[in-house]
Amino acid sequence: MVKQERAVRTRRALIDAAAAVFAEEGYVPSSLATISKRAGVSNGALHFHFENKRALAQAVEEAAVDVIHELVRLSGNAGTSALQALVDATHGLVGCLSDDIVVRAGFDLSAERALGAETGLMRTWHAWVAETLHRAEAEGHLAPGVSPDDAAAAIVAVTVGFEVLAGDDPQWLAERRIVGFWELLLPGITTQDHPVSARPDAGDDKRPDFLGT
Amino acid sequence: MVKQERAVRTRRALIDAAAAVFAEEGYVPSSLATISKRAGVSNGALHFHFENKRALAQAVEEAAVDVIHELVRLSGNAGTSALQALVDATHGLVGCLSDDIVVRAGFDLSAERALGAETGLMRTWHAWVAETLHRAEAEGHLAPGVSPDDAAAAIVAVTVGFEVLAGDDPQWLAERRIVGFWELLLPGITTQDHPVSARPDAGDDKRPDFLGT
Repeated sequence: MVKQERAVRTRRALIDAAAAVFAEEGYVPSSLATISKRAGVSNGALHFHFENKRALAQAVEEAAVDVIHELVRLSGNAGTSALQALVDATHGLVGCLSDDIVVRAGFDLSAERALGAETGLMRTWHAWVAETLHRAEAEGHLAPGVSPDDAAAAIVAVTVGFEVLAGDDPQWLAERRIVGFWELLLPGITTQDHPVSARPDAGDDKRPDFLGT
Repeated sequence: MVKQERAVRTRRALIDAAAAVFAEEGYVPSSLATISKRAGVSNGALHFHFENKRALAQAVEEAAVDVIHELVRLSGNAGTSALQALVDATHGLVGCLSDDIVVRAGFDLSAERALGAETGLMRTWHAWVAETLHRAEAEGHLAPGVSPDDAAAAIVAVTVGFEVLAGDDPQWLAERRIVGFWELLLPGITTQDHPVSARPDAGDDKRPDFLGT
């Protein structure tokens, strides 16, 4: 293994370990020593890659933002309406929150008061949801009078709420929850001639295989 | 002032101070010394009332639960349908989250991983929302096919999401957000012959004046 490849792997191992430790213990009480130990690297190696815990938290959140970008890219495949892409992306997001410790930790960090306003994960998600609803409006698929921005706020708040509530009970991230939400919301926001499925498109798994690479 | 009255006031001052410090700094980094200083009482007085930080956090959450109970009691006035009571209570809750540091801190603590599963604020809220939707169903006001439990999950997740997102931007607790949410959701869940206002009943302020007592 060449030197650079090893460095990339070590960095990634540190991000994964930090995500796991943050998710288990919370950001503030987590120690760099616990994280380096979990990653199987020395304290010196950790400090070579990350100046401090804040920098590590930022790297976790950036890795999570990458997953969100990949998720929305996959949801916007040709032939899918904007509204269906939105439904699919929320399913993808909840799946990632359920399975992927980096995305989970990224969302938690994004709500972490100790990190202040520098975090951008929820804003990335919000911006994409709002943009997609404006696209749905342009496609003529929003019911008359529906505000794309109000709908975006509600959808973002629901996904954030599911994630927070799942800290207490993982069932909040079950697929049926998000199906149930869309079944309630879709009749109020869509035009009757545009059917949207509350379930994700069956057949192809649209979750990004980010961490497996 | 008799001794017992003073003890009640000191206890309340400690709960208010703890809520403010937890809300500003987060639960884990907050110190008992900061809290007692803020409350203007000695460390000894703090320990007379609360064994440790966990006990103080529990008292904050219990005080917030009391507000929720008062809120839902006021929303359930005679002459209001269950659905309108639900809309009114969500407005009351968001108003309290916006104005009342104890309710705000109670919600944060309820999502605090370091405290484990002992917290009950979100469960109290969830149980009332679900019960009220079952009542709305019994009153014949839910559209056919609407699951009261799915609707409860979505409504609870939205309120939790608004609260978390408000940590970054207080506008998430503006009244128009919750009006916007209900305007989207109500058409999908109500029967057409039962009009429900997305705004709280005008005229009387239904927020409990808990902290002013």
